[in-house]
Amino acid sequence: MAETAAKTPEKPQRKLKTRIGTPTHEIHRLLFRGKDTLNELVGKITFTEGVFLAVTGKLPTRQQTQILDACLVILMDHGITPSALVARLVADTVPTDVQVPIAAGLLTVGNKFMGTIAGAGALLQKGVESGKPPREWAAETVAEALKAKRRFPGFGHPDYFPDDPRTMRLFEVAKSVGVSGRYIEMIKLLETEIEKQGGKRVPLNATGAIGALLCEIDFPVAAMRGVAVISRSAGLLAHALEELETGSSWPVMQMVMNAVPYDDE
Amino acid sequence: MAETAAKTPEKPQRKLKTRIGTPTHEIHRLLFRGKDTLNELVGKITFTEGVFLAVTGKLPTRQQTQILDACLVILMDHGITPSALVARLVADTVPTDVQVPIAAGLLTVGNKFMGTIAGAGALLQKGVESGKPPREWAAETVAEALKAKRRFPGFGHPDYFPDDPRTMRLFEVAKSVGVSGRYIEMIKLLETEIEKQGGKRVPLNATGAIGALLCEIDFPVAAMRGVAVISRSAGLLAHALEELETGSSWPVMQMVMNAVPYDDE
Amino acid sequence: MAETAAKTPEKPQRKLKTRIGTPTHEIHRLLFRGKDTLNELVGKITFTEGVFLAVTGKLPTRQQTQILDACLVILMDHGITPSALVARLVADTVPTDVQVPIAAGLLTVGNKFMGTIAGAGALLQKGVESGKPPREWAAETVAEALKAKRRFPGFGHPDYFPDDPRTMRLFEVAKSVGVSGRYIEMIKLLETEIEKQGGKRVPLNATGAIGALLCEIDFPVAAMRGVAVISRSAGLLAHALEELETGSSWPVMQMVMNAVPYDDE
Amino acid sequence: MAETAAKTPEKPQRKLKTRIGTPTHEIHRLLFRGKDTLNELVGKITFTEGVFLAVTGKLPTRQQTQILDACLVILMDHGITPSALVARLVADTVPTDVQVPIAAGLLTVGNKFMGTIAGAGALLQKGVESGKPPREWAAETVAEALKAKRRFPGFGHPDYFPDDPRTMRLFEVAKSVGVSGRYIEMIKLLETEIEKQGGKRVPLNATGAIGALLCEIDFPVAAMRGVAVISRSAGLLAHALEELETGSSWPVMQMVMNAVPYDDE
Repeated sequence: MAETAAKTPEKPQRKLKTRIGTPTHEIHRLLFRGKDTLNELVGKITFTEGVFLAVTGKLPTRQQTQILDACLVILMDHGITPSALVARLVADTVPTDVQVPIAAGLLTVGNKFMGTIAGAGALLQKGVESGKPPREWAAETVAEALKAKRRFPGFGHPDYFPDDPRTMRLFEVAKSVGVSGRYIEMIKLLETEIEKQGGKRVPLNATGAIGALLCEIDFPVAAMRGVAVISRSAGLLAHALEELETGSSWPVMQMVMNAVPYDDE
Repeated sequence: MAETAAKTPEKPQRKLKTRIGTPTHEIHRLLFRGKDTLNELVGKITFTEGVFLAVTGKLPTRQQTQILDACLVILMDHGITPSALVARLVADTVPTDVQVPIAAGLLTVGNKFMGTIAGAGALLQKGVESGKPPREWAAETVAEALKAKRRFPGFGHPDYFPDDPRTMRLFEVAKSVGVSGRYIEMIKLLETEIEKQGGKRVPLNATGAIGALLCEIDFPVAAMRGVAVISRSAGLLAHALEELETGSSWPVMQMVMNAVPYDDE
Repeated sequence: MAETAAKTPEKPQRKLKTRIGTPTHEIHRLLFRGKDTLNELVGKITFTEGVFLAVTGKLPTRQQTQILDACLVILMDHGITPSALVARLVADTVPTDVQVPIAAGLLTVGNKFMGTIAGAGALLQKGVESGKPPREWAAETVAEALKAKRRFPGFGHPDYFPDDPRTMRLFEVAKSVGVSGRYIEMIKLLETEIEKQGGKRVPLNATGAIGALLCEIDFPVAAMRGVAVISRSAGLLAHALEELETGSSWPVMQMVMNAVPYDDE
Repeated sequence: MAETAAKTPEKPQRKLKTRIGTPTHEIHRLLFRGKDTLNELVGKITFTEGVFLAVTGKLPTRQQTQILDACLVILMDHGITPSALVARLVADTVPTDVQVPIAAGLLTVGNKFMGTIAGAGALLQKGVESGKPPREWAAETVAEALKAKRRFPGFGHPDYFPDDPRTMRLFEVAKSVGVSGRYIEMIKLLETEIEKQGGKRVPLNATGAIGALLCEIDFPVAAMRGVAVISRSAGLLAHALEELETGSSWPVMQMVMNAVPYDDE
């Protein structure tokens, strides 16, 4: 084959840039999302304010910060969850690099558990975009879902009934800092309609409530699962350190190995 | 082989427990490191205070929180770093699960870059444990390291000279909130001795300064790299979202492919 | 709340077992998918045969092995791809644990690139299940997809036109070992119909061909992406080792940093 | 600060290249480690031969392939290990992207378990480089280790005593294909000396034997852990698929949660 045939067809070069931050080699400036990192951010804002800035490009109001803090704090840990167990098993075999067990544990922050935050947020955004009166929208949405036997993201919990105490506390915090609005209203209407139309109570759980609260503070739906990721990274750090100190992986593995026998039938 | 030989030798069962948090199925209580999550933490503390609590089991003082916030904010991003590039490449191929690119990017928070925080912290802890007067300890430590041609964790930077502006800002923040002490003193003495004995200035960089500051607030050395992990998870969330929005991976890959040719010599 | 309310509702315990393999503590036997590992497998079968056994529970025929080997070999590497670049960037920062860069690189084996193997496989399975004559099925499927502006998994390539030479070689191998059948027939019919109905040629690419070949050897669709994962793990090992030896990450990062400037507009 | 100060200091550009493989955009050739991928490799070699080529740049002899196959087959699975449990927990929460649970599980292939292959290999390489007669080297090495209370990588097993049956089988395979040599001799001498000098038998385990065998076939020490990574990726694929089919994660998590209570003392 002729060498001249080897040329890659020209592709229009997209304009490459990032608006997140400057690299360290630009030694005359250190910017993060349009702010002077050293003079406007370090020592001036909390990490939570930094998270909001990172995602939206804007510094949050006091109310937005308080809500984001409440969400970040409540998601940090729930004891020995799949994410914690994964982090602990990996910490035991890679004890020298704590970022490895944390990263492994974070991989579990998928659709099944915390991904429902964004699911609830997206549903509420669609509701607002529909322009329908909230009560009408909720009634129609629940009717459709029941017909299609579809479950709602952010509703139901294997342990909490009739209410998820975390939901109640999150709404209490929202009220106390003066955050209220149509997203909270709409998700409560969904809860009411699910019970009314479905004939049994399915409580709004913590991830559903967080989805609504993050909508209220203009936190983008695409970034919502990231709140769980950041928050849980702190909880998993604690689990990885505890594992290195007290070591529970090995007895847990023995228990699991004995409980899950080999059976080739 | 006889079946009787198959029995696993008995092993003493370690007492298994976790002091991090309660699982959700304990519906009458929700505890995190000895605190009532809903009534003492959510809506009461910031996420940064939660991080300190997660790692140490104690709520921080106002000063400890301010220092930890400064460290978390300054480590959030440095533009297109290896961690950001990894997260963006993975976001492009796994666009549906934002935890996957974040976790991939966090794997790079290794010894080479941010692991030096803990290296500096450990060195300072050893210095304090030695019981020697700081100046004497610094002089001896530098002399030994120069002889062994060993580099110090937290010193030197390819771009910043003669000073790392981040170091100066971090120490300024520490001073303004009233945090000072032997760790800061000792790391500054190291910087002086390195220049004096080595004959050329090697500036204390941001990770070295963070190591000293985290020592000052009683943040354990084993958890120090975790500060970079938590902080960077927010920066990587921003990069993953930007990648999904504007897509820079493909042109970057084309550039890299063209710059790194195949050559089997 | 009364303590008595705290009990978790009883859940029926699923019968737990695994049919993959025995744990090492069952010292009188070592089984893998029903086979005696030491006496029937080690020294008796190739790794590729082991892969087939792992996934299907059956040892492959000679033809099945030859096809699986061809697929595993062809997917091993394509130079500096996103997976290779990710592995190299992580190898540079975690040089002590080669499994970490390999795992990071494997995370990119997502839907965008190699996931199309399973997409093509699933499409063909559906075609067979439809019971329609292949030509009719292909014509209808292409017509529907064109109408919905849907692209076919396993078709088209930015560089290869009018044919993907890898596809041609894979089909040549299939023919030479005597593997042919309705899946290969159907995917070729799709290629023909796409050109006929769409008015321009969109070549069947390597992942589409692999999807068809893996269908021919009864390799389950759910496991198809795994072939790319196993195969690429070998290529990424080579990249991680090369990175540790010759170090290309840092100059590549400098190039990328310079090419993607910070711009906050 | 003057803009002129902003220039990054010039750094000599390293010559960038890869000898692994060509990118797909070089449409006139497809090379992998100096071989023509389509004409010399696909349909001609097994995947195991490809692994050897990827790592060493050379195609293996028949003996080298047989040994590498035996090592890859024996490491594929050991039932519900930490790697399998991690993969299953992640599969349950990220069911759509099978590369994610496999990558998570591979992170556990660390120093504690399979990393000992490379440890044993490195020890033997050092022994050969010492130039000492094998028996003398083994006696000295064991004497030093006993004095320093250092354990040998690749020796001892919680379940197998007095012999690890996998070790015996691997050496049997080596003998049957005509592979023998100083590495096997030296590791057997170590086993003898450990028993003689230490006063109790510590059996050579499978990872130690694999380290010796991989030395015999000129497989580089730096790549040895990669054999476990590639091999285990197949076992973890099987576990991820079984998890998606039969779902054991949730009952296992319930058992573990109940077994590891929260206790803040």
